[in-house]
Amino acid sequence: MNRQSEFQRQQNWIQETLRSENASALLITYLPHIQWLCGFTGSNGVLIVQRDEMHLITDRRYEIQASLEVSDAQIHISTHNLINFVQSQNLIKKSDRLLFQPEYITFDAIEQWKANLTKIKLFPRKNLLNPLVAIKSKRAIEGMRHSQSISDAVFNEILPRINTGIKENELAAIIDYQHRLFGASAMAFDTIVAFGENSALPHARPTDRKLKNDESILLDFGCIANGYASDMTRTIFHGTPTQEFQIAYNSVKTAQSNAVKMANNEVLASEVDSAARGSLKEYGFEEYFAHSTGHGIGIEVHEWPSISNKSIAQLLNGYTVTIEPGVYFPEKFGIRIEDTVLICSNQCERLSSIGRDLIVI
Amino acid sequence: MNRQSEFQRQQNWIQETLRSENASALLITYLPHIQWLCGFTGSNGVLIVQRDEMHLITDRRYEIQASLEVSDAQIHISTHNLINFVQSQNLIKKSDRLLFQPEYITFDAIEQWKANLTKIKLFPRKNLLNPLVAIKSKRAIEGMRHSQSISDAVFNEILPRINTGIKENELAAIIDYQHRLFGASAMAFDTIVAFGENSALPHARPTDRKLKNDESILLDFGCIANGYASDMTRTIFHGTPTQEFQIAYNSVKTAQSNAVKMANNEVLASEVDSAARGSLKEYGFEEYFAHSTGHGIGIEVHEWPSISNKSIAQLLNGYTVTIEPGVYFPEKFGIRIEDTVLICSNQCERLSSIGRDLIVI
Repeated sequence: MNRQSEFQRQQNWIQETLRSENASALLITYLPHIQWLCGFTGSNGVLIVQRDEMHLITDRRYEIQASLEVSDAQIHISTHNLINFVQSQNLIKKSDRLLFQPEYITFDAIEQWKANLTKIKLFPRKNLLNPLVAIKSKRAIEGMRHSQSISDAVFNEILPRINTGIKENELAAIIDYQHRLFGASAMAFDTIVAFGENSALPHARPTDRKLKNDESILLDFGCIANGYASDMTRTIFHGTPTQEFQIAYNSVKTAQSNAVKMANNEVLASEVDSAARGSLKEYGFEEYFAHSTGHGIGIEVHEWPSISNKSIAQLLNGYTVTIEPGVYFPEKFGIRIEDTVLICSNQCERLSSIGRDLIVI
Repeated sequence: MNRQSEFQRQQNWIQETLRSENASALLITYLPHIQWLCGFTGSNGVLIVQRDEMHLITDRRYEIQASLEVSDAQIHISTHNLINFVQSQNLIKKSDRLLFQPEYITFDAIEQWKANLTKIKLFPRKNLLNPLVAIKSKRAIEGMRHSQSISDAVFNEILPRINTGIKENELAAIIDYQHRLFGASAMAFDTIVAFGENSALPHARPTDRKLKNDESILLDFGCIANGYASDMTRTIFHGTPTQEFQIAYNSVKTAQSNAVKMANNEVLASEVDSAARGSLKEYGFEEYFAHSTGHGIGIEVHEWPSISNKSIAQLLNGYTVTIEPGVYFPEKFGIRIEDTVLICSNQCERLSSIGRDLIVI
């Protein structure tokens, strides 16, 4: 499927949504959803989807970029406030029933829209596009495979460079640099490199701390390449792991494996979370798993749905999500193993080619 | 001023605000403002400021981190939805008049707060903390000097490495890597490296394009170090600049200089923007300056106020803002010169030590 027909299919989905909601227009202010629907990647824009046409409103910084990226929306360059512009140009008709996404727009922005479009009825519709955006096109899946292949290559590249005395932030710098050399346009989030007891913080930040002998190393990184994100975590060991560490490692490896096995078409996200949590419970480690099992990933590194016990989402073919259970023992060590997987009809597919057996260096 | 007395001073400001607004509590969900007021740097949290106490609610991932970072708020670890937790623990009393910041919270979140706290009156107050957060403490100013000194060192480090044939993304990778080696914890935004005609896009992204002889190079980067951001732009030339380029360069240099001269205590942000725009008008380049003149910077790279013709903000002692006029000639080249400045009683201070004369390499 080429890019144009991909956008066309997605726009058809939106048209169906408008009809089923008996609405005449949809206001999209969330930039990743604008990118998904029309290709625009600027940092300021509003997309108005009507039954018969789309309008993208942005500012002069993005005049050239918008004309290069967007083909099937009318592009408007505003020199003042985008909301005022929409009002002054009558881009939304008085009779319109206008839907908006309440989880992606500020309270203040809605107040401004209401103040400007006094004759328009605005209706919040939560979770309107998320289940559509979550289904990756073939092009998106290829993009995600490519981003993950860069992260895999970096993982293999850095292993021989990890020696006693290297600092967490030095290793993080090398990881980021290698991603760029392999073609990433940016990192998808701040790279986590945590040695020994630092890895007991699930969201540790790299510090000046040096690697000692007989310590674990938690590596969590991902990049953006061609507009799609990768995300992976491996915990490896420098020296000789204790039995305590090996048991904990095996518990996470088993939990991750069981959650991955559970992650299939039409399975609830909460069931995947339970699979991970149940495995850790058998090891007596359930209480040390203090976060959710994963999250959707695509244009952004964190997308809907959350893979947690509170999620009511159902996984469907074409969703890409992370599966990343972990255990964290304060002042000792933390272990997390994470893969991005593509949901398929049978067994989901891990996008990373890096194995999950404990790597000892 | 040590960190504790800095927090205390800021908390006193909030107490004054509560009294003057006749409110009993303030709900802060915007993470940079939570960090500013109590030091917490996690990615999930709610801060409730009352007349006599502060409550920070976060999740188990940040249990250890919160106890290390936060000293003068009561820390609550919620295992479920933070809003439900606040309701179930009666952290907000029924009689409370609760202020919130409508520009920093989603429409949906406010609906959830209202649904949970049925007896509480919620009042939006726009721009409530921005003018307070904008006044940097001595510690914050030292932090920003340090971040900028890292970016300055990187600028000097990379100049000799720029040769014909280097790719934009390769140079961007080196810039990011060097920042990490000099002690940055992250980049403050995606580094911009744009050669020749690519620099005509104000928000260009680094590509595979190689540097040719007799081309301009636009470099826009900044980092986060010790929690504070830097931001700078220089446009340099590889080879022999044309007269057309030199005239355009001088126009931007003059515009930036005039805007910096204007940026003083009690001057309006719009006057600083006009100083830059007026200078470019004298060169006949006003229409090629298609963005605002700058923005506040501190914990985040983009903070209130905007330095634009629409801004009604007044600059005050202790504010740190960027001054970054530019001109962009489609398919030819773009030029931008940017410094972060500290507003003082007399002349504002540029935090960067890198000069603005055209560097030819």
